[in-house]
Amino acid sequence: MNKKQLIKQINTKKSFLCIGLDVDLEKIPQHLLKLDDPIFEFNKQIIDATHHLAVAYKPNIAFYEAYGIKGWQALQKTIKYLNDNYPEIFTIADAKRGDIGNTSTRYAKAFFEDLNFDSVTVAPYMGSDSVEPFLAFKDKFTILLTLTSNAGGLDFQVLKDENGLTLYEKVLKQSRSWKNSDQLMYVVGATRPEYFQKIRKIVPHHFLLVPGIGAQGGDLQGVCKYGMNDDIGLLINSSRGIIYASKGTDFANKAMESALKLQQEMEIILK
Amino acid sequence: MNKKQLIKQINTKKSFLCIGLDVDLEKIPQHLLKLDDPIFEFNKQIIDATHHLAVAYKPNIAFYEAYGIKGWQALQKTIKYLNDNYPEIFTIADAKRGDIGNTSTRYAKAFFEDLNFDSVTVAPYMGSDSVEPFLAFKDKFTILLTLTSNAGGLDFQVLKDENGLTLYEKVLKQSRSWKNSDQLMYVVGATRPEYFQKIRKIVPHHFLLVPGIGAQGGDLQGVCKYGMNDDIGLLINSSRGIIYASKGTDFANKAMESALKLQQEMEIILK
Repeated sequence: MNKKQLIKQINTKKSFLCIGLDVDLEKIPQHLLKLDDPIFEFNKQIIDATHHLAVAYKPNIAFYEAYGIKGWQALQKTIKYLNDNYPEIFTIADAKRGDIGNTSTRYAKAFFEDLNFDSVTVAPYMGSDSVEPFLAFKDKFTILLTLTSNAGGLDFQVLKDENGLTLYEKVLKQSRSWKNSDQLMYVVGATRPEYFQKIRKIVPHHFLLVPGIGAQGGDLQGVCKYGMNDDIGLLINSSRGIIYASKGTDFANKAMESALKLQQEMEIILK
Repeated sequence: MNKKQLIKQINTKKSFLCIGLDVDLEKIPQHLLKLDDPIFEFNKQIIDATHHLAVAYKPNIAFYEAYGIKGWQALQKTIKYLNDNYPEIFTIADAKRGDIGNTSTRYAKAFFEDLNFDSVTVAPYMGSDSVEPFLAFKDKFTILLTLTSNAGGLDFQVLKDENGLTLYEKVLKQSRSWKNSDQLMYVVGATRPEYFQKIRKIVPHHFLLVPGIGAQGGDLQGVCKYGMNDDIGLLINSSRGIIYASKGTDFANKAMESALKLQQEMEIILK
């Protein structure tokens, strides 16, 4: 998928919502556990109920890996289901990978070719040659961790260098010079709206993936006020607040209602 | 496994060699490709031929993920084979994971419980609460990326703060205060022997996992001179230089010869 297609979808759906598929067998409705593949069945029903309200889905790969082969199979089926039935949807493998060049190419192949995701999240610690192998894939996006929503995000990301530049700003600045940097997006936590202005000065045109709305306490209005650009430029993720809205047989409908609430807020902001 | 057992193994084998199992179907002997599971068969023969010379094996998870379900199955079989047949071996999942707390716990379960590795490599960018969930597992080690061997490693890791402290030094210093920090090890590339003295001042007692010997040009003598401590404190990794020593039917024997060469160098250093 390219950027134009993503923006078109946002304008059509009046939504820049991303739904995180962080599937935990202890949290999904009990009646699904009798089925052959409860993870996939849960995802399928969530997707069917919410696809008109969301522009992106983001399976968090850890939740699948934790179930071994079965988890990996459920992930394969989920991404195939999305690609087959809702090809307009932007898909994000939230994998936070990153390694030396030849290894990053392997990860890129796993997520972009084998699984056919549109994008993957990548950690910047190992620098340019750990990220550029991902950027080499055409029409695929690499979403770089920048300023994360967790408390520990402040341990290293806001360290200042001799010139007063923080690590996350350095990551943003340097990454602009990497090959195919137009295929970058950035992860910026919603719990830090005060940083969005600074970030937009460095990367005015790129999309930001913003987790932390809902369960983690982030504020949609604040993020939009400082983070939005002419292309909208935001993908706001909500996971637990939507997918675990109910533990009963009505879970898909309740997820839809939660997604609708966010979509309606977004529609007002888009006006 | 605990640290004492690892040190005992090093003294018994007179080796602190770790063999990287970065299995690429395009590089392994052609005759294996006819088999049901060429990746596992390759690993099995390499392990059988070299286990007396190495104290640790390190599958690079990217190489397995790139082959989807089949890769994951080969990884499962490899770690099971190691645990069943050579329980004294220290096993490292080179996964470079790291995410917010509840997600890191998932990754930790995947590698420590489901697969039963002794250790996993983790990226520090997201800070304390992305690493501590790994450290919560008893008798398991978390190997933190510190100063990596690739060129891009210098993009961010050696950035200096206002007090002249580099990012990798900050990672070392802060990590010492994390819960169960005695279960930490650190990745330090062999291509940077000049840094080992500084690193040993900050973490005199922890083990360092050192990739970059061989194909990447690192120097064993230099690393040992500055990096060794009273417990040895080093695991020197070689991947391509050992496992791809030959592409013929003699590959396991040639791998053994390459491993033996390194083990003999280590034996001399240990005296």
